[in-house]
Amino acid sequence: MTAGSLKEKSLSKSKMRITGTFLDEISHDIPHQNWGEDEWRKDFGAMRAAGIHTVILIRCGHRRWMTFPSKVLQAKADGFEPPVDLVRMFLSLSEEFGMDFYCGTYDSGHPWWEPDYQVVPEVALMREVCDELIDRYGDCPAFKGWYLSQEIAGSNPAAVACYQALGAHLKARIPGSRIMISPGMKGAKAYDANMKKLGKTIAPELHEAEWDEIMKRIQGTVDIIAFQDGHVEIELLPVFLEINNRLARKYGMECWTNSESFDRDMPIDFLPVKWEKLWLKLKAAEKAGITNAITFEFSHFMSPHSMYPSARGLFDRYCEYAGLPARAKDFRLY
Amino acid sequence: MTAGSLKEKSLSKSKMRITGTFLDEISHDIPHQNWGEDEWRKDFGAMRAAGIHTVILIRCGHRRWMTFPSKVLQAKADGFEPPVDLVRMFLSLSEEFGMDFYCGTYDSGHPWWEPDYQVVPEVALMREVCDELIDRYGDCPAFKGWYLSQEIAGSNPAAVACYQALGAHLKARIPGSRIMISPGMKGAKAYDANMKKLGKTIAPELHEAEWDEIMKRIQGTVDIIAFQDGHVEIELLPVFLEINNRLARKYGMECWTNSESFDRDMPIDFLPVKWEKLWLKLKAAEKAGITNAITFEFSHFMSPHSMYPSARGLFDRYCEYAGLPARAKDFRLY
Amino acid sequence: MTAGSLKEKSLSKSKMRITGTFLDEISHDIPHQNWGEDEWRKDFGAMRAAGIHTVILIRCGHRRWMTFPSKVLQAKADGFEPPVDLVRMFLSLSEEFGMDFYCGTYDSGHPWWEPDYQVVPEVALMREVCDELIDRYGDCPAFKGWYLSQEIAGSNPAAVACYQALGAHLKARIPGSRIMISPGMKGAKAYDANMKKLGKTIAPELHEAEWDEIMKRIQGTVDIIAFQDGHVEIELLPVFLEINNRLARKYGMECWTNSESFDRDMPIDFLPVKWEKLWLKLKAAEKAGITNAITFEFSHFMSPHSMYPSARGLFDRYCEYAGLPARAKDFRLY
Repeated sequence: MTAGSLKEKSLSKSKMRITGTFLDEISHDIPHQNWGEDEWRKDFGAMRAAGIHTVILIRCGHRRWMTFPSKVLQAKADGFEPPVDLVRMFLSLSEEFGMDFYCGTYDSGHPWWEPDYQVVPEVALMREVCDELIDRYGDCPAFKGWYLSQEIAGSNPAAVACYQALGAHLKARIPGSRIMISPGMKGAKAYDANMKKLGKTIAPELHEAEWDEIMKRIQGTVDIIAFQDGHVEIELLPVFLEINNRLARKYGMECWTNSESFDRDMPIDFLPVKWEKLWLKLKAAEKAGITNAITFEFSHFMSPHSMYPSARGLFDRYCEYAGLPARAKDFRLY
Repeated sequence: MTAGSLKEKSLSKSKMRITGTFLDEISHDIPHQNWGEDEWRKDFGAMRAAGIHTVILIRCGHRRWMTFPSKVLQAKADGFEPPVDLVRMFLSLSEEFGMDFYCGTYDSGHPWWEPDYQVVPEVALMREVCDELIDRYGDCPAFKGWYLSQEIAGSNPAAVACYQALGAHLKARIPGSRIMISPGMKGAKAYDANMKKLGKTIAPELHEAEWDEIMKRIQGTVDIIAFQDGHVEIELLPVFLEINNRLARKYGMECWTNSESFDRDMPIDFLPVKWEKLWLKLKAAEKAGITNAITFEFSHFMSPHSMYPSARGLFDRYCEYAGLPARAKDFRLY
Repeated sequence: MTAGSLKEKSLSKSKMRITGTFLDEISHDIPHQNWGEDEWRKDFGAMRAAGIHTVILIRCGHRRWMTFPSKVLQAKADGFEPPVDLVRMFLSLSEEFGMDFYCGTYDSGHPWWEPDYQVVPEVALMREVCDELIDRYGDCPAFKGWYLSQEIAGSNPAAVACYQALGAHLKARIPGSRIMISPGMKGAKAYDANMKKLGKTIAPELHEAEWDEIMKRIQGTVDIIAFQDGHVEIELLPVFLEINNRLARKYGMECWTNSESFDRDMPIDFLPVKWEKLWLKLKAAEKAGITNAITFEFSHFMSPHSMYPSARGLFDRYCEYAGLPARAKDFRLY
C-alpha cells in the first residue's frame, strides 16, 4: 500500500459554494482579533481567494459600542467614540476587492423577545442610525443593502413589527437596496436567553407553521432569508432546509443558507468547525434546492489569518472541495 | 550573575518515555484541526522525532460519525459517509513511519453505566464493525491490536461484559493481536455523566478493591491497561499508580501510564498542560514501577503543529527532558 | 475614496502608558505557555520594545507549586520541587533588560475571606518564605520590592491584618523596598468565590467608604495600589478610578491602574481584550489623574509571542497608540 493510493476520490460533486461572510467586528460572543487596516486588507484578499464576494457587517452598533463615530448613538445611547471608522474602512475595502457590502442595523441589546419590549422607540432609534449611515456612506458604490440584526428563531411579533417598519423605511430611502435576515431555528443546539442549550429540536411542522406566518408578514420587505444552520442536528437539516426554501419561494424571497463555520458540539464552543460537518451541511442545503451559502464567519473560523490556527485547515479543506487553488500556506498575517 | 549561570542542571534522571499517543479524529470533546494527509504526514514525523512508535485510534466510529466508510454503520447506525478513509490513511502512515497501529472499537454513545444498558446488541454491533475492519485492513502489517473504547473508572458490569465478549472474539479472529484499555480513576478531577467534576478522590483501598475484581474478570482478554493519570491529584498519584501496576502484574497484564498532556485545572479545560505537571506525573509512574507511557494526545497538546501554540513549548520541554534533539522551531505546518 | 483616505487621525493624545506587567508563572486560571529561558528572554525583549520596565511576579508559590526550590515550602507545605528556578531566571533577565523586579508573596490557597481564616500562622509561613527569598536573592540589584498576593475587593479584616504584619516585616528587613497591592473592585464582572459573576456593581459611595477604611489602615505599609480595572463596567470606570486616586493621595500612596489586557465579556473569558476596551480604560485612568499603568498580563495577552495569536494585534494597536516603532511582525518565538 502506498500513501498515494490513499487519496480518496473527491466524494463531492457539490456545487454549493460559500459566497458571502459576516464581519463580526462588534461582537457579544466572539473574541476580538485586534486587526488594523493592513490585516483586514489581507483578509479581504483571502476571502476573494476563497470565492467570497459579499460581506455583511453583522451590526453597526451594539449597546454602547459603535463601528463608526455615530452622532446619533453618542447622543442617544451614550455610545463610546470608536478609535476607527470601520464602516468606511469596510466600504473602501469592499470597493477595492469588488465586494458587495451589506450594513447591519443597530442592536440596542434590549430583549425583543420579552412582552414589554417597546418596538416603536426601538425602531425610531434604529431608523435614525440608518439615516445617519445613508448620509455618511450612501453614495459608496459597494453599499448594496442591509442586514436586519435582530435574530429570531420563530414567532416573535415585536421583531417582525421591527422588520416591517424599518424595512419599509429603508426601501423608501434607497430604492433597490436589498434586505437580508439570518434567523436561527429552534434546534437542540440553540441557546435560550440564559445561554443554556435547548437540547430538543422543534417538530418540523411547528417550525413550518411559525415561519409560514412570519414570512407572510415580511414578504416584500425582506429579500433574502439565510437561516443559521448550526442549531439543528445535522441529520435533521435536510428536512428543515427544504421547508425554509419552499416557504421562501412561496413568499418571493431568496433562501440562502448561513452555514456556520464554528462548532457547537464541543465543551469550548465557538472554535472552527470540523470540515466534515461543514461539508455535510452544505450538501444538505444543496439537496434542499438552496443555491447560495454565506457563513458566520470567515475571519475567525475559516481564514488563514484567524487567531485559531485550525481555521487554516478548514480553509484548505474548503478550497480543495470548491476546486480553488488557494492554500493557507500562501497567506501570512505577520 | 550571568544568564548562563541560570541554566539548571537537569533535575531529571527519569527514564520514563512517552512512546505512544492516541489519535483523536472522532472526538466528542476536542476541537478538530482539519488536517489532510500532508499535515498528518508531517505530524507523524514529529511523533517519531519525539520517540513515539505506537498510535492508537481512540475509536473507529462515534454515534453517526465514522473514520472509514463502514457499510455496517451506514446500514445499522445511519452513519454519515466520511469525506476520507482515515483508517487507511493512518495505517499507511504507520507503515511509512514504522509505527504500531491500534484500532479503537465503535462507540455508539449509549450510556453503558446505566442499568438498562443492553450489552448483547451493543457488542453484536461492535463485533460486526470489527469484522468489517479486519476484512478491509487486517492484512496491513502495521495493524497490531485493538483499543476497547469504553472508558470506565471503576465497577461497571456492563462494560466488563463487553470487554470479555468482544475481546474473546477479536483474539479468536486474529491470534496474537494485542488488546488495550485506558480507564479513568474516580479522582477529584474526573467528570461525572453531567460533565461536573467529582471534587473528591476515592479512597485508595476502594480503588484497589474495585480494580482487583475487574482485572480478575478481564485477565487473559486485556493485554495492556493504561490508566488515565489526570483525574487524581498529582500528590496522590504515586499511591494510585502503585496499586494499578501491582494489580496488573498480579493478573498478567502490562501496566502503562496514559499521561495526559492537557490540563484539567483551568477555567478553560483541554489546553496543553504545564510541563511541570506532566514531568511530575511521569516521575510518579516511574516511581510506581511502570516502564512505559502513552499520552492523550500528541497532535493537539504536544505537537509543534498543534492549533494550540503552547503545545510547541511542551514539545520542546519534553524533548529536552528526554534528551532528544528535536525542537519545535524545526517543524512548520504551513 | 481611496484606502489611504481611511486612515483615521489618531484619536488619542493620551499620555497614559503601560510600564509594567505581571508575570503569571504560577497560575490558577491562565493556561501555561511552557516557555524556557530562551523564550522568556525573547519576551522580555518584546516587553522593553513596548515600553515596559517593571515586572511583578504574581506569587512565588501557590498551594504546592513553587517558582523556586523553597526549602520552607517543601518542609511546611509539601511543595513540589520545580524543574527550574524561575525567581533566579526572572531576576537575571530583569538585570539584563534593565527591569525592576517585584516579588509576589506565597499564596496558600486558603480562603482569607472566610471567618475562620487563621491570619497568624498564614502570615508566619509567608514571612518565612519571604526571608528565604531575601537570603537567596536579596542582593540582586533588580530586586526592587514586593507584591502582596492576597487580592481583595473591599472590606477584609484578615487580609488587611496580613498586609500590615507582613509589610512591616518586609520594610524592616529591606529598608527602602517598595510594596504593591492590586485589589479588585466589587464590579458586575468580578467573580465570587464560586466563580460566578456578581452581575451588579457596588455603589461608588460604598466602594469609597470601604477603601477609605482599608487605606487608612495600610498607609505607611503599602506604597503602590493598582486596582484591577476589569470588574467595573467601562462607563463607570471614571467614577471609580477617581475615587481610588483621591483616596491613595489622601493616605500617601501611589495609585496606578492595573489595566487588564484580557477580556471579561465573552463566553470564553481570559482571551486577549479588544483594543478599543483597553484604550477606553487607559483614557479613563488618565482622566482620573492616574499617571502610570501596569497590566495583567503582557506575555499571554499582549505579547507577539503569546499562545493567543490575537495578542499580536493588541501589541500592534498598543504600540501605534503609544507612538512606539515595534510591530508584532518583527518578533517570532520559533
